[in-house]
Amino acid sequence: MKLLKEKILKEGIVVGSEILKVDSFLNHQIDISLMQEIGKEFYRRFKDCGINKILTIEASGIGIASIAAIYFDVPVVFAKKAKSKNLDAETYKSSVYSFTKQAHYDVQVSKRYLNPEDRILILDDFLANAQAALGLIDIINQSGATLEGIGIVIEKGFQDGGQILREMDIKLESLAIVNRFEDGKITFIEHSEA
Amino acid sequence: MKLLKEKILKEGIVVGSEILKVDSFLNHQIDISLMQEIGKEFYRRFKDCGINKILTIEASGIGIASIAAIYFDVPVVFAKKAKSKNLDAETYKSSVYSFTKQAHYDVQVSKRYLNPEDRILILDDFLANAQAALGLIDIINQSGATLEGIGIVIEKGFQDGGQILREMDIKLESLAIVNRFEDGKITFIEHSEA
Repeated sequence: MKLLKEKILKEGIVVGSEILKVDSFLNHQIDISLMQEIGKEFYRRFKDCGINKILTIEASGIGIASIAAIYFDVPVVFAKKAKSKNLDAETYKSSVYSFTKQAHYDVQVSKRYLNPEDRILILDDFLANAQAALGLIDIINQSGATLEGIGIVIEKGFQDGGQILREMDIKLESLAIVNRFEDGKITFIEHSEA
Repeated sequence: MKLLKEKILKEGIVVGSEILKVDSFLNHQIDISLMQEIGKEFYRRFKDCGINKILTIEASGIGIASIAAIYFDVPVVFAKKAKSKNLDAETYKSSVYSFTKQAHYDVQVSKRYLNPEDRILILDDFLANAQAALGLIDIINQSGATLEGIGIVIEKGFQDGGQILREMDIKLESLAIVNRFEDGKITFIEHSEA
């Protein structure tokens, strides 16, 4: 997605060879106009999949999913990371390993909000090693719902998440796929229409 | 806001005398059509305030703020609760006490995303004792930006947050104000046009 790649080149900050900070428009400050274009693009790529619910994970995924959901005209469910006092006792739960934090954490979705009839699109800001996505897929499988696809804003092409999901025959659409950052430089991998 | 109150009466679940669960449309599953109506209503109430940025706090505030921001045509900034490896070193920080968790936590906003020229609208899902709102106000004051108003989806009228903020002469607009729940029953307090 050209507009997104231009934004990444203009405002993305590279730290070392693996970290890309996009705080200015994606995961701290949110550029709402860009998010609408991203929402439209996800809709264009998944509109024929019969999606009736979008699933994401707190926190950065929520803004992206909420705006995209306008174009799909479906509700959003966001999986919770922390134990919440107010969460239903009956949840689907999966354990996710965070390489960044080097620790496991639980993701949970109340059983009320996933059903066997649901046809789910997972949306998230980043795809690196796919641990969070695998946790959400596990939860979807527990519920009996169907995963129709996964939409990612920025995939790190040098980590194995994309390969893992594509080998599972999942329809994965990443709007931008970045290479490992050499000399602080951002380049993109061209993959289908990313 | 009539549509919101009807939704609360239809789907809200009362636990004890003080907890209202609105997981089905606000803070776990998100009803995107309702969120658009809520966004329009916030815009109607604050459109003459010169807002150029919406500030909220992760996680439940993000969906509300992102959709409302479409009507204001401004960016969203969400304050972070957890320590993030990728967060800028330079942040405005405030300590917030959570009565639910009976512990303090820090909220942070990168100094890049709040400036003295900013005219801020704070949006959040719930207002109870205003601790989170006071933390955000502290951060706005540190940055030199101007707080133009606070918009809340559901105010708990039986807790003191509303009073604290109104006594600070802040333009506070709550779309529904609920009474203490007696016998599991939800009733509303009529306050201006809430």
